Amino acid sequence: MRTTTGWQADPATRVLRRTTLQRRDLRPDDIAVRVDYCGVCHSDLHALDAHQGDRDGTLVPGHEFTGTVTEVGSAVTGFAPGDPVAVGNIVDSCGTCPMCRADQENFCHDFPTLTYGGRDRDDGTPTLGAYSREYVVREDFAHHLPQGLDPAAAAPLLCAGVTVWEPLRALGVGPHSTVAVAGLGGLGHLAVKFAVALGAATTVVSRTPDKAEEARALGAEALVVSTDATAMAAVRDHFDVVIDTISAPHDLSPYLRTVALDGTLSHLGHLGPVTVDTTDLLIGRKKLSSAGSGGRRSTAAMLRFCAEHDITADIELLPSAEVNTARDRLERNDVRYRFVLDMADLDVVDHDAAEPA
Amino acid sequence: MRTTTGWQADPATRVLRRTTLQRRDLRPDDIAVRVDYCGVCHSDLHALDAHQGDRDGTLVPGHEFTGTVTEVGSAVTGFAPGDPVAVGNIVDSCGTCPMCRADQENFCHDFPTLTYGGRDRDDGTPTLGAYSREYVVREDFAHHLPQGLDPAAAAPLLCAGVTVWEPLRALGVGPHSTVAVAGLGGLGHLAVKFAVALGAATTVVSRTPDKAEEARALGAEALVVSTDATAMAAVRDHFDVVIDTISAPHDLSPYLRTVALDGTLSHLGHLGPVTVDTTDLLIGRKKLSSAGSGGRRSTAAMLRFCAEHDITADIELLPSAEVNTARDRLERNDVRYRFVLDMADLDVVDHDAAEPA
Repeated sequence: MRTTTGWQADPATRVLRRTTLQRRDLRPDDIAVRVDYCGVCHSDLHALDAHQGDRDGTLVPGHEFTGTVTEVGSAVTGFAPGDPVAVGNIVDSCGTCPMCRADQENFCHDFPTLTYGGRDRDDGTPTLGAYSREYVVREDFAHHLPQGLDPAAAAPLLCAGVTVWEPLRALGVGPHSTVAVAGLGGLGHLAVKFAVALGAATTVVSRTPDKAEEARALGAEALVVSTDATAMAAVRDHFDVVIDTISAPHDLSPYLRTVALDGTLSHLGHLGPVTVDTTDLLIGRKKLSSAGSGGRRSTAAMLRFCAEHDITADIELLPSAEVNTARDRLERNDVRYRFVLDMADLDVVDHDAAEPA
Repeated sequence: MRTTTGWQADPATRVLRRTTLQRRDLRPDDIAVRVDYCGVCHSDLHALDAHQGDRDGTLVPGHEFTGTVTEVGSAVTGFAPGDPVAVGNIVDSCGTCPMCRADQENFCHDFPTLTYGGRDRDDGTPTLGAYSREYVVREDFAHHLPQGLDPAAAAPLLCAGVTVWEPLRALGVGPHSTVAVAGLGGLGHLAVKFAVALGAATTVVSRTPDKAEEARALGAEALVVSTDATAMAAVRDHFDVVIDTISAPHDLSPYLRTVALDGTLSHLGHLGPVTVDTTDLLIGRKKLSSAGSGGRRSTAAMLRFCAEHDITADIELLPSAEVNTARDRLERNDVRYRFVLDMADLDVVDHDAAEPA
């Protein structure tokens, strides 16, 4: 086994504490990655909540990261030590089901192996995430990080990015599309950047006008205030695609009303049951959809697109020792737009420096 | 005013009773239609339920009918007396909103004028439906009934038919599509006929295997029993389009699981709120949609398609005096697949012949 250091959740308190972790010895198709940067995703908060009271003590979050290959298994052909690399929220899948064969390993019928909170397909051990200094991963589930992309700001592309990229592409967004992005956070700001770069006329829908300037800075043509009935009526049946990234449960009806004839609302920010009035879909033959994470092929395509269009996340970079601060502030949506943890401080041995607040 | 005879609901009992009705004098763009055949739609049952206890006594159902032009207004150019004609569930709309301009008068922002249970846009009088011997309608909302289509069996095309036609067309169903039709009633059997004629590999999904032979007779390749977990698992992620015509509230999850990657479930049979688990949409980026009735252009296109492919509804034709029997049997789903009322008996003056059961 290999030994590294990372941030593990205390099941009783949700506090992340620095600890020593084990990684598997390299299998023939594995690469070892020095984790340089890892994004802090809303899913990490959900995992902390779900983990509370769970006493097995194995939760190490982190599933959008960039780093550097340090060692490769005997059969690895795609990577060499020193390569910049990026990994998202799945690290394995069955490889044989129809979804895997369609390059959508994220929808694997046998359920993909999650980067953390999953089970290794070979030995059944729990997967520990990338809030740590080293990760060991099958080379097939690692991506080359294109040159020119800042590795810290690129980390959130691997989960937040591909989660909005896949529906935009699957729904055919391009130069003749009108797109609205509801909610301007980690997912939303990347959805705006992608939609704009794809050529779509892009609008942000937000509860308050405060973000109008930011929306325009990201390339949006306008911000529509969702509580302004007149403004919302003016965009009735208007958008071919609405990317709804709002993370709290909310009434979809006002947003569905803005969807154009035969258009789609992709509901990404909130999981769980959602209730819609059939007439909100019927009138205009509108569609409600969702999406989440990405397959290997589309993730690679997204990274190429980002390199071509110079797209990364707008981030706030914190030393990994401030992970609990990031958690608290993300819970308050106090971030523009994604926290990324710099794992370099894990090389420092002094544990006192990493005491949680 | 013009005087005719029809079947009006008794608000206290839901019984339809023969009565004398008034129609407006022809406006310049109106045509008068002798109603020959009118389908009995599930919506008519809902209207009877909603009407119960309502004492204004104006409910005359019927919104899918065929007939013969008897007289035309001074400015009418498209019809002449003697023309076979067909009318659906909307008889007017604002004509200027984006939906009307997109030939989707059924989604008019100012709400379309319904064939019954609506209000005339000019004088505000309640619209009375086609369970009657005469209907007066703007020529723009009447369709020429193509030669070769049996006028009795064609009547249900005007509501049931176009309701399934629009989503099949909007979702691009064609020779390379896989389509499932859930529920084999008035809507469902027409969805099967259309999907098969459009070239799609078509499957019926039904609660029981009883309808397997009928499904094949309609052109379906197979019937999958929705309560058979093994059979349903075999069509996981399989259908590009699922047309869900089941009229009772039901769990959409088993049906969403049969939708292919990026495919759509069009939920037509049941109105009202519907709850879905977001993960049922997320895994496979599936879409939930709906549709209902049709615009003028697509209705005309559907009628042409029906004439080319010799498609009409499979009906049970009853004298209009048996309307209450049709109502009762439809409530029990005891019909293959649509009741159509023959209005000729309304020419007979003897009211005793028309006493309700």
